[in-house]
Amino acid sequence: MTERSTPPDHKTRLADLRAELSGLELDGFIVPKVDEHQGEYVAARSERLAWLSGFSGSAGSAVVLTERAAIFVDGRYTLQVRDEVEVDLFEPRHLTNEPQTEWISDHLADGQRLGYDPWLHTPAQVARLQAACDKAGAELVAVDINPVDSVWPDQPAAPLAPVVAQPDEFAGQSSADKRRQIAATLSDQGAGALVISAPDSIAWLLNIRGSDVPFTPFALSFALLHGDASVDWFIDAGKPARGLSDHLGTDVRLHGPDRLGDHLDQLAKDGRAVHLNSAATPNWIYLRLKSTGATFVRGEDPCQLAKAQKNPVELAGMRAAHLRDGVALSRFLAWLADAAPGGQESEISIGDYLEKMRAENNLFQGLSFPTISGSGPNGAIVHYRVSEQTNRKLDQGSLLLVDSGGQYLDGTTDVTRTIAIGRPSDEMRDNFTRVLKGHIALATATFPTGTTGSQLDILARLPLWQAGLDYDHGTGHGVGAYLSVHEGPQRISKIPSTVALLPGMIISNEPGFYKTGAYGIRIENLVDVIPSDAGADTGRDMLAFETLTLAPIDRNVINIGMLSADEIAWVNAYHQRVRDQIGPLVDGETSEWLTEVTRALD
Amino acid sequence: MTERSTPPDHKTRLADLRAELSGLELDGFIVPKVDEHQGEYVAARSERLAWLSGFSGSAGSAVVLTERAAIFVDGRYTLQVRDEVEVDLFEPRHLTNEPQTEWISDHLADGQRLGYDPWLHTPAQVARLQAACDKAGAELVAVDINPVDSVWPDQPAAPLAPVVAQPDEFAGQSSADKRRQIAATLSDQGAGALVISAPDSIAWLLNIRGSDVPFTPFALSFALLHGDASVDWFIDAGKPARGLSDHLGTDVRLHGPDRLGDHLDQLAKDGRAVHLNSAATPNWIYLRLKSTGATFVRGEDPCQLAKAQKNPVELAGMRAAHLRDGVALSRFLAWLADAAPGGQESEISIGDYLEKMRAENNLFQGLSFPTISGSGPNGAIVHYRVSEQTNRKLDQGSLLLVDSGGQYLDGTTDVTRTIAIGRPSDEMRDNFTRVLKGHIALATATFPTGTTGSQLDILARLPLWQAGLDYDHGTGHGVGAYLSVHEGPQRISKIPSTVALLPGMIISNEPGFYKTGAYGIRIENLVDVIPSDAGADTGRDMLAFETLTLAPIDRNVINIGMLSADEIAWVNAYHQRVRDQIGPLVDGETSEWLTEVTRALD
Repeated sequence: MTERSTPPDHKTRLADLRAELSGLELDGFIVPKVDEHQGEYVAARSERLAWLSGFSGSAGSAVVLTERAAIFVDGRYTLQVRDEVEVDLFEPRHLTNEPQTEWISDHLADGQRLGYDPWLHTPAQVARLQAACDKAGAELVAVDINPVDSVWPDQPAAPLAPVVAQPDEFAGQSSADKRRQIAATLSDQGAGALVISAPDSIAWLLNIRGSDVPFTPFALSFALLHGDASVDWFIDAGKPARGLSDHLGTDVRLHGPDRLGDHLDQLAKDGRAVHLNSAATPNWIYLRLKSTGATFVRGEDPCQLAKAQKNPVELAGMRAAHLRDGVALSRFLAWLADAAPGGQESEISIGDYLEKMRAENNLFQGLSFPTISGSGPNGAIVHYRVSEQTNRKLDQGSLLLVDSGGQYLDGTTDVTRTIAIGRPSDEMRDNFTRVLKGHIALATATFPTGTTGSQLDILARLPLWQAGLDYDHGTGHGVGAYLSVHEGPQRISKIPSTVALLPGMIISNEPGFYKTGAYGIRIENLVDVIPSDAGADTGRDMLAFETLTLAPIDRNVINIGMLSADEIAWVNAYHQRVRDQIGPLVDGETSEWLTEVTRALD
Repeated sequence: MTERSTPPDHKTRLADLRAELSGLELDGFIVPKVDEHQGEYVAARSERLAWLSGFSGSAGSAVVLTERAAIFVDGRYTLQVRDEVEVDLFEPRHLTNEPQTEWISDHLADGQRLGYDPWLHTPAQVARLQAACDKAGAELVAVDINPVDSVWPDQPAAPLAPVVAQPDEFAGQSSADKRRQIAATLSDQGAGALVISAPDSIAWLLNIRGSDVPFTPFALSFALLHGDASVDWFIDAGKPARGLSDHLGTDVRLHGPDRLGDHLDQLAKDGRAVHLNSAATPNWIYLRLKSTGATFVRGEDPCQLAKAQKNPVELAGMRAAHLRDGVALSRFLAWLADAAPGGQESEISIGDYLEKMRAENNLFQGLSFPTISGSGPNGAIVHYRVSEQTNRKLDQGSLLLVDSGGQYLDGTTDVTRTIAIGRPSDEMRDNFTRVLKGHIALATATFPTGTTGSQLDILARLPLWQAGLDYDHGTGHGVGAYLSVHEGPQRISKIPSTVALLPGMIISNEPGFYKTGAYGIRIENLVDVIPSDAGADTGRDMLAFETLTLAPIDRNVINIGMLSADEIAWVNAYHQRVRDQIGPLVDGETSEWLTEVTRALD
């Protein structure tokens, strides 16, 4: 970590905010990282926490009171926050060990008023904040205008990126079909309308794509789906590209974002129960509906589960995207094998080269997330993002961890490879092989319908556990089809889940091992859930995984003696698939290299 | 299944109950199988469902309305209920597929009154019943006296079995210590008193044992633990054995069961928050507390988690009990090997012989549950209980499944062995070997502190899943130390759990496979959770299992070719342990047989 000077104006910004709060008769205000859609990546205008505090991490929250302020970050960012934020202004706290709600209860005085922006917090979050305020005898107050916006002179405007149709040739199911499908589930649950605040749900439901935020091709907007399968869509009139209304048809009615409130009022007046997700919808929407006497059906947004089950066209697109992505990766890995011994390449230069390989593809739309390129000790930082300050050269005898992905018109990819630069140590090889054994155990699992990701999680960990090792992140996350690289509701993790894996779901298989200050290992492929014929004779409906990602796994880091015959056979079959499918699509030099690195383990 | 005549008087009993209900101005009444303690085994006086309907299963419930009645049973009993119950009187329904609450909503009319006994339902259950009645516009009414008791002329009296001390030499921790420990957790949770309705919690807390119900050595009673670690114990004065009050000391105050209400009123008057488990405490207690304005802290009974973590003395007792139980089992198995070929032995005769072997032990107190002795197709009935009507001889070429256990003063056992009678088929051997592979995978697992049983469950199932097979029961349940053979809060199951496995917990390892109409396979050992040194070098706290049960696994049903070298080594090491530990304790003939059946796999 290197020292960085704090921009000189955070003190001023904080003072400006406090003056604004004073004018609003507020004794405090909460500044979360998220936007109105609780999204992972947000538009520049929503980077209020970064503007106010200097903190650039992907998650966090600040609470500003009259005399003190605190910033809450998770374990990934406990070092970074002290590097980026002036701790005299914002006391750094650990998000889970020292919760924001506790700090609020401790530091708010009886009778004080704490403000929050009801667009940036869900009803579930507000309930927790309310309890914290109650404990202190304080009042929680929803503001009309975010006071950070009032004191941020050059705040960027809301994004107005064009919204385009995702044609049926990629979507595989018409929007009208999808709307009927979701409307039917609403009716089953006794709801007359669905509030949709997740932009990826809207992108899926309407078969549209946008580029309002980095890395995820959706448009920021809200929608109401009605029982008759029609949609009211609240989006700036400048966004839809020419011809989009033909694609949408007359059952999708466009309105300006400012009309949402009136439509919510009408729902309540019509006496229709509104389906709403208390853990995702902005509290503003909930409060508006409540104030007009609406009744609620609580539950997950049904688009999420429907979207997670890719249809055959989407699956074909994902396979095609992975083939193209595998070509880019193989060209990158072949180049790296040649370039690395020169000693001039760095985390940044190899990331750039990899992006260039992907960009040569005409369906490529951009990266699906910021590339994690971690050399040596930087590889042990699970959510590492290289900067000029931290950039490392690739040293001989080190491991390089590269976690990257692309957005293609027909699919989204996410792949991690760990590559030995020079000769890896025995310890590196042993631990890499344990990670590989876990990866294979998950990749080859057969399981009955109804099985959840939390049941399977241990398969990826057990070879590490047997040596007293583990990794402190989930084993797998859902992935969208030319949508978000992180999507639900399925996941593979230690955290108990009740969401069964279903055919067509895409999920990552990414066990790892991290030795702080030394190296990081992760092997990540995407897989899709497929029916298995294991139950053909027994009458049980069984499922299995098909691996989508196609890129060689570095043989130099495998300790073959630790693999069973079945595991060796899996590696060889996988490598043969990579060679057979990627080989014909790359240049002669890459093809030769590929043949060499995918030869059978011996 | 054979036809049995319904006892002639169930029609009369039902008519008598309806007449009684009419006198109480009730239009219906619920008759569950459970007693006031929601227990698995109940006293004869509490067998109201059996008396009324004839149904003898271990779980179920009837709802009697004026014109119709239904009996709700789970999947284990859908056949048995039709055999035992006159379906003209009680329409059989599936407990989970056709829930009682739905039937109540459908068949109660607006304004009708449904009665229930508040001693036999928990607040959580009553909330569901209340919702069902609300839906129908009906009223749910708590009765003062159970109307079944009013019309059951020869209802047995409440049991008055003597209550004796469980000496510290077996308990390993004094009651005073335990009471202080639990009182401290109450104080942490802001509660001033704990309502204890689980008889096994009281047996553990006070270091006492009783014999009010079959199979489980506890006394039916209620208790209140106070913040000062003293206890008010509500139990019939005739139960405590001579000298018990010396054992209990002055901080445990005895009262008649009828005094409970007054003490609850006093708690509320004192303004002390009462810790209560809504899923276990009788609603009567909740209503009484609520009526006097008590405040509540909801949560699991903290005695359960403390009791589950056996102390070193209890673990030593469990090991000693398992050694003795292993002697009885080995003598039984040696005898069976000799007797079975004669063709005269039956499920009943072999169960009797096994009980006789256990009973020859002077610390033996009885069986820990009714022996499951299932020959051929009866082995495929997971909760099979042999009767004169279903009793089968042991056929050549069949499998015999024997699941049994004993209560000893120093421990409780529960073990299942599956034995080939004559020559098993290849299919039987393959499936037995898959069950064995799952059993070994679980027995040899190493896992970090914080791991739950639901994370481990898959280890026992995966070898079956790979062949499209599974078993429809949990993989492991907690077991008490000379207490209940089924205890919580830990379990190993597909059902998501948040209860981490902790050192000292005892749990069963019992994968199985069942082919309806053909055979059943189950291999069950008890294990305890122990610290593992796998994390000694890595700084992670790791845990593992130690197998307690000592009895040979039938080599004749193992397909050695399906086992890995590690699995073969496990079987050989386990058998060597059985031979070394049991061999010296049995007669020459049994010892010779043991040497033969525990020789290394070849």
